[in-house]
Amino acid sequence: MSDFPKFVEFREEGPREGFQIESKTYPIEQRIELIDMLSDTGLKRIQVGSFVSPRYVPQMADTGELFQRIKRKPGVKYTSLWLNEKGFRKALTAHEVDIDPRLLFYPSEAFAQANNNCSSAEMRERQREWVRLYKEAGYTVDAAYVMTAFGCNLEGPIPQERVLENFRFVLRLCEEEQIPVPILVIADTMGWGNPEAVKRMVGALRELAPGARIGMHLHDTRGLGIANIHAALSMGVDMFESSVAGLGGCPFAGHGNARAAGNVCTEDAVFLCHELGIETGIDLDKLIAAAVKAEEIIGAPLMGRVMHSGGLDKFRKAK
Amino acid sequence: MSDFPKFVEFREEGPREGFQIESKTYPIEQRIELIDMLSDTGLKRIQVGSFVSPRYVPQMADTGELFQRIKRKPGVKYTSLWLNEKGFRKALTAHEVDIDPRLLFYPSEAFAQANNNCSSAEMRERQREWVRLYKEAGYTVDAAYVMTAFGCNLEGPIPQERVLENFRFVLRLCEEEQIPVPILVIADTMGWGNPEAVKRMVGALRELAPGARIGMHLHDTRGLGIANIHAALSMGVDMFESSVAGLGGCPFAGHGNARAAGNVCTEDAVFLCHELGIETGIDLDKLIAAAVKAEEIIGAPLMGRVMHSGGLDKFRKAK
Repeated sequence: MSDFPKFVEFREEGPREGFQIESKTYPIEQRIELIDMLSDTGLKRIQVGSFVSPRYVPQMADTGELFQRIKRKPGVKYTSLWLNEKGFRKALTAHEVDIDPRLLFYPSEAFAQANNNCSSAEMRERQREWVRLYKEAGYTVDAAYVMTAFGCNLEGPIPQERVLENFRFVLRLCEEEQIPVPILVIADTMGWGNPEAVKRMVGALRELAPGARIGMHLHDTRGLGIANIHAALSMGVDMFESSVAGLGGCPFAGHGNARAAGNVCTEDAVFLCHELGIETGIDLDKLIAAAVKAEEIIGAPLMGRVMHSGGLDKFRKAK
Repeated sequence: MSDFPKFVEFREEGPREGFQIESKTYPIEQRIELIDMLSDTGLKRIQVGSFVSPRYVPQMADTGELFQRIKRKPGVKYTSLWLNEKGFRKALTAHEVDIDPRLLFYPSEAFAQANNNCSSAEMRERQREWVRLYKEAGYTVDAAYVMTAFGCNLEGPIPQERVLENFRFVLRLCEEEQIPVPILVIADTMGWGNPEAVKRMVGALRELAPGARIGMHLHDTRGLGIANIHAALSMGVDMFESSVAGLGGCPFAGHGNARAAGNVCTEDAVFLCHELGIETGIDLDKLIAAAVKAEEIIGAPLMGRVMHSGGLDKFRKAK
């Protein structure tokens, strides 16, 4: 039988994910306005931007300024992405970045090579160095991600055992380094997962790490994002990364680089939770307002559903 | 545990649902082209148009001509919608319409009044007349629909018992009229369902009618369409009505009447089935091509996901 959690945490990635993928740069004032609206929804963690090379990702060149100018809500963490030590140092010295140290694992050899120019095993070893880097800076690891956990466009299907092998490494590493086990995040980076595969993966990971907290990073590339969240919820997963309005994907032909859907849509997932009686701490109406604002900024239809239809509360109250 | 069917039938409603909702009329040649493409996908039933008053739905005024001009594929049924006896008579006399007699039930009093100017109980009694009308014309009932089975914007949540009451009436009616029990279709007309409610409803209906075939008509209004299909599949439901590309809903601001999603998207649902190892008899790539054609005709982004990303077979074969 299902084992739904009572409370689910959503970590919002829209402000980074959404604008990073676009070929144009949006005015910083608009991005500040969106982040400020998100701060007011009840979300407890918002990824504001990334500290990456402005040569490769010019859209994120002003992440430092963003951190200075957003209105901070007490209790909300404002986080950022980095991909190398230089980026991490930038995050450390930028204005009030909430550091959430991450480890990244690549069970796909082809993706490890393409992204990091190393093998899957070398990528694992590199995470040791990250643990020490984080330690030196006074942090412990918040989350360990295994990417392309169900399949990889470059490599094909990823056998479950290769995913588990990486999580096993995480557990060993934590023991060796005497640090607490971080949230174990199954990332469906390229949208290969389906609800039954999700259940099998979460089940196997629970067996491997009975006490650990499990999170998921899901993409809606092929329309199964919400079904995958439902499957994960039924296995007790209580942390999801998602994007308001489905920011990061866009169906609008010729707009930006992306016609396909990206991250699973935050407000659709929140709606699902509320319908199932699972608390999120989030005000759906405020989140919908933020999604509508995101669509207004992008200037093209975004992928979210509930943002275009509204929730059900108004109809329930009407009666 | 789940009880997935081996084969699932999809009944395509896009050509009617999609163009009926639009405020403009699309050239008949384009609609013929789309239907002909759909005929070639492996779909076994395509709803071509509706025989309704051209005064109220001018977009469907040429349904008769459509039936004359489409290229028929052997084994495919080309059906139509009608809402009253006049429409039914038109369907009977039009060129080679595959008649699929339907009964409609309205557990929502408010919706029964709004749509049919009668009570829910009166609407039930009217279905008796339909059974006789169909009999006279030489047909038996193909499917019995209970509309707004999870909730209604006009009335609020619909208690399960009121849905079952209507299906109970169907079973009694079939006994009295000595006709076979039709497919029992749970219709989430306004997108109120969630996966757990779907499971409860299908479970209760199975108990009520153990031998009957159960189908679902699902809307993706709030993003739960595919999750609801997965839930229904896990309860053995093996017939779904859906729309290619999600035709009938459109996120494009200012386009047509509808910003919200409509019917659940056929190719996304077919993709789900194939990923779960469930056969559909449908060629996903051909269906995606039809979805892309639909988007081209509408001239605005449609709601489908897989149509914008493609399936996974090409990546599997690549390896």
